[in-house]
Amino acid sequence: MKWDLSQLEIIAEGKTKTVYAHPENPQLSLLYFKDDITAGDGAKHDVMKGKGAINCETSSLVMRCLNRHGVPTHFVEQIDENTQLVRKVDMIPLECISRQIAYGSLVRRFPFFKKGEQLPYVTFETHFKNDAEHDPPINKSLAVAGGLLTNEQYKIIHGITIKAFKILRDAFENVGATLVDYKVEFGITSDGQIVLADELTNDSWRVWPGGIEEHMIDKQVYRDTGDVKKAKVGYEQMLELVRRF
Amino acid sequence: MKWDLSQLEIIAEGKTKTVYAHPENPQLSLLYFKDDITAGDGAKHDVMKGKGAINCETSSLVMRCLNRHGVPTHFVEQIDENTQLVRKVDMIPLECISRQIAYGSLVRRFPFFKKGEQLPYVTFETHFKNDAEHDPPINKSLAVAGGLLTNEQYKIIHGITIKAFKILRDAFENVGATLVDYKVEFGITSDGQIVLADELTNDSWRVWPGGIEEHMIDKQVYRDTGDVKKAKVGYEQMLELVRRF
Repeated sequence: MKWDLSQLEIIAEGKTKTVYAHPENPQLSLLYFKDDITAGDGAKHDVMKGKGAINCETSSLVMRCLNRHGVPTHFVEQIDENTQLVRKVDMIPLECISRQIAYGSLVRRFPFFKKGEQLPYVTFETHFKNDAEHDPPINKSLAVAGGLLTNEQYKIIHGITIKAFKILRDAFENVGATLVDYKVEFGITSDGQIVLADELTNDSWRVWPGGIEEHMIDKQVYRDTGDVKKAKVGYEQMLELVRRF
Repeated sequence: MKWDLSQLEIIAEGKTKTVYAHPENPQLSLLYFKDDITAGDGAKHDVMKGKGAINCETSSLVMRCLNRHGVPTHFVEQIDENTQLVRKVDMIPLECISRQIAYGSLVRRFPFFKKGEQLPYVTFETHFKNDAEHDPPINKSLAVAGGLLTNEQYKIIHGITIKAFKILRDAFENVGATLVDYKVEFGITSDGQIVLADELTNDSWRVWPGGIEEHMIDKQVYRDTGDVKKAKVGYEQMLELVRRF
């Protein structure tokens, strides 16, 4: 990469990534993937050496796969080990979640779902990004009333979230793994287009090779055990999987 | 009333009401309003002598008002001080909430709403009735996937919740008070009709006489102060208000 990130303006700093202003093109940003790993809205926090590079490549491969299938994303290209060139967007402060198997917080909140149960269709829910309140669920009525986005924009992110989930579900199925659920985020470009942004990595989903919960290789391993070394094996296996997308 | 409730079968027992099987007509139930008052999903609990009778009459008057305006409800008639004759229903385990002013949990969860702010439209949200998880928000996608109700039924309860809110907003406005928000529940009759059920009382809403927060006469007084005597004055004032509906 021809720029020194430390000389660039930071637009946004997250727990696992930093967004830098592009030094020449105001329509673009540079997205740097850090080695940090967190869980429980930041309550658990470690450094996993090499995670940034793994996730940067993982997200590049997944975004490329989605682009090929006609899903609009912020991704342009990967420009070094930890850095992507992406379209500059205003992020919509919502986590968009789809599921095809009941797991995690869903089962705790709604005991009528049994852990591991196949859902009758790919579900959609949105949560407002607010660590202090543990990303509370928010629906269309409240999100639009609060001015986070328009009714039309909500319908668009709903549609893209489901579409991208099904594309990745099929891609994982082709490499022998089951996509249980995932979380995506969206941004709005300067010309008003809604694109899938942020990242799609092993931090974003639950994936069970062979469809077997105990074979999980996603961030859940870290959530459950706090074991960074063990979790890293999963991140490496995940990268191998998505290289075959 | 010609029956002794203690001889009747209890169908359901809530924190503030008991539902009895009708001894003669399987399409009907008897709904008994208790003197209990609770807050914080039952964490706070007191007895307010006379509350049951006040709320029974309040709910009867409000349900009658809604029936007059074409809203289907479970209400048939009040048969003694604390008891209503209602249609027998299977309750849908959702709390349906509408708001026109931002207040309470909404502002805590979503700081982009300012306390007391007028919302751009009457909002709609559903929460799953689960005290242990503090009635977590649930949207249509998850409620339908979980089999709580059908997609079509969700649309119906959405429509009735908004319609009934606007009817009561106007009714309160006519008596000089502002309906800030409310919570309603729905049931399904044996012939499949969705009706507004449960109750509509001073436990169900926030109401500000003169539109002034400090003049509140609803259960919020009890939530804020725990003062049962002070709160009871509000319940009596509320009954006076809805007698003018």
